[in-house]
Amino acid sequence: MKAVIITIGDELLIGQTVDTNSAWMGAEMSKIGFDIIKKISINDKREDILELLGEIVGKVDVALITGGLGPTSDDITKPTLCEFFGTSLELNPEVLEMVVQTISLRDYPLTELNKKQAEVPKSCQVIKNAVGTAPGMWFEKDNTIFVFMPGVPMEMEHLMASYVLPKLRTIFNNSTIIHKNLMLYGIPESILAERLADFETNLPKELKLAYLPSSGVIKLRLTGRGDNNRYIENLINEKVAELYSIIPQYIFAEDEESMEITIGKLLVARNKTIGTAESCTGGNISTLITSVPGSSKYFKGSIVAYDNSIKTGLLGVNENLLTKFGAVSQQVVEAMAIGARRELKVDYAIATSGVAGPSGGTESKPVGTVWIAVSSEKRTVSQKLRLSADRKNNITRSSLSAINLAIKEIKL
Amino acid sequence: MKAVIITIGDELLIGQTVDTNSAWMGAEMSKIGFDIIKKISINDKREDILELLGEIVGKVDVALITGGLGPTSDDITKPTLCEFFGTSLELNPEVLEMVVQTISLRDYPLTELNKKQAEVPKSCQVIKNAVGTAPGMWFEKDNTIFVFMPGVPMEMEHLMASYVLPKLRTIFNNSTIIHKNLMLYGIPESILAERLADFETNLPKELKLAYLPSSGVIKLRLTGRGDNNRYIENLINEKVAELYSIIPQYIFAEDEESMEITIGKLLVARNKTIGTAESCTGGNISTLITSVPGSSKYFKGSIVAYDNSIKTGLLGVNENLLTKFGAVSQQVVEAMAIGARRELKVDYAIATSGVAGPSGGTESKPVGTVWIAVSSEKRTVSQKLRLSADRKNNITRSSLSAINLAIKEIKL
Repeated sequence: MKAVIITIGDELLIGQTVDTNSAWMGAEMSKIGFDIIKKISINDKREDILELLGEIVGKVDVALITGGLGPTSDDITKPTLCEFFGTSLELNPEVLEMVVQTISLRDYPLTELNKKQAEVPKSCQVIKNAVGTAPGMWFEKDNTIFVFMPGVPMEMEHLMASYVLPKLRTIFNNSTIIHKNLMLYGIPESILAERLADFETNLPKELKLAYLPSSGVIKLRLTGRGDNNRYIENLINEKVAELYSIIPQYIFAEDEESMEITIGKLLVARNKTIGTAESCTGGNISTLITSVPGSSKYFKGSIVAYDNSIKTGLLGVNENLLTKFGAVSQQVVEAMAIGARRELKVDYAIATSGVAGPSGGTESKPVGTVWIAVSSEKRTVSQKLRLSADRKNNITRSSLSAINLAIKEIKL
Repeated sequence: MKAVIITIGDELLIGQTVDTNSAWMGAEMSKIGFDIIKKISINDKREDILELLGEIVGKVDVALITGGLGPTSDDITKPTLCEFFGTSLELNPEVLEMVVQTISLRDYPLTELNKKQAEVPKSCQVIKNAVGTAPGMWFEKDNTIFVFMPGVPMEMEHLMASYVLPKLRTIFNNSTIIHKNLMLYGIPESILAERLADFETNLPKELKLAYLPSSGVIKLRLTGRGDNNRYIENLINEKVAELYSIIPQYIFAEDEESMEITIGKLLVARNKTIGTAESCTGGNISTLITSVPGSSKYFKGSIVAYDNSIKTGLLGVNENLLTKFGAVSQQVVEAMAIGARRELKVDYAIATSGVAGPSGGTESKPVGTVWIAVSSEKRTVSQKLRLSADRKNNITRSSLSAINLAIKEIKL
């Protein structure tokens, strides 16, 4: 079963907006067995839209299209759809009612533009949008289903989850595609690939292995295809067990589980709390941990000690250590972790201190030099990282390395 | 001058990876006058790659392609390119030398896979990669330039900036496309569009207006096209001045400037410092502010007070306020801001306290209820926000609203 994903809007083409919608749609469609054969972004120009719809009609089973349905006048999608599907716009009273309701929840009046959003092509099936003002639209032509949705991620996701995905599942009865991911940290892709060369060569023909690296985290993905769901599942489970025996020390989680979710689960299971003392990561570890719903159960707080006065003041780091070894040192980062555990009254404290860059490096401590530490009642451990010249990368990598170190300490 | 952007790799199609590369390339190509007519993502399958290359050859001036050049065996791009361009692979000694150098900086040995990366199609022009192991490749066929680059964002950006963009600029002598953005906060898109309806109607034919909303921030983009650079620039400047007179209170910056950069510039200009006391935002404001290079000049630190014990302890919030009004209240958020200003010894302190969700709401304080405050020697101000049921959105919106409030206070 083939699907294409189309996003409309020149903000995507000229790079004003990063397209997160199609990644989300791709993942969901893939889960229910669709092969995504292409993703395309085009301008919101009549000719370009007509040409693309003409190219795909009859060639794929489903086309999911987002964008071009906002309240402002740079959107010209609806009249173009009427042209392509041979229909015309009409005011839909039900949609108007929903727009009125949505708007009344906000502190702003109904505008003419909002009313225009209730106009929909006659021949389409309207998909109600409970979280926004632009409805979804479902057309069928020459054996291709076209689903048009607004480009606002929350609205698209709502329409997909509440209506589109369930309906597609009932219409299509697909052969099985199963994805299974292992989440790895602490090994470069090329070294990992060497370690797994034999494993990959010996995979059964139904399975495929892929490496998906991102900021040091590698998603190792096994994909299985076939008609017999149970058989493919068993094959995958067998191979996952094999991976656990080859590279146990690098696997921190399965599926899409992020490190911040992993650490939360470990803490909840042990009834322990955590907090951070951050210098070069500037609160990023705290932000990652609290991005998880329910994190207030185990996360108590943080002290972001960017300035040395905060390190000596709130964290109680001895001024002599700073003078003697500098802020970016094993001695200071360990003192920060110990201070945070004491001041925040937590079981585990993570600390970071480093030169994030792009400037501020010295010969002995170049940009990318970072110390991380974890303190618990068991012990205090620390580690030196040699990262890059890129500030964003350094902050991300320091944060992930520090959480990974904490995960290992919690598991001890 | 037409360009297309192609990304190769099924991790993009099945949504394992969000495609940030093409946004970056689109922005850069657009700046030097190219029209990006399409963005396409396809599988790393021989047939799909050949079909797509065949479709675009001769139809566009430039095709930028990323992905499919990593060290692991899920990549089959290079042999396919040889097929399409009628050439074969050969070991390039210069590239091998660079790979050896890059690898020697890391703590890992050279692998067979790394050596394979030094094999390149004979007929292409090799683009040296100083930050990774996969070189770029430049082909020309039937008046189309094809540039292949690795998918790792840092490597692609390096190849583009150091070689591809300068070379394209010298080859093509384009007509002018100028983009100018104003960054707005605090007004919904539909209301803004009503306010600007007359302005938009009266725009000269060379200019186009677009609304690009994202998490409450609206980029208002004016695009001008024409042959006379100076003329287009003047038209845009005139219209920007008009926008400043119509909606001054919502504009916080120009161009791509984020709120965290804006607040940094304001603080540096006034020689003032800032810090935060964060509950529901969990350190996100601190993370945003410290994402800016040089932020250590004005950012001293933060206290993330997730647990009430941190609010009463490190921030010195009176326990009676918490008992009487609850953590999510005007009284507590203002006390947090005042406490942070005192404890962190900063000129401005930002504080947040709210119900981020998805659970934890009550009838009087439903999920999405957030209080923000800013304290300075001038005064302490606070504001109540009514946000959504979505945790991520609530954290982002609370953070931006709080920084926006601080910007207004600093400007006072």
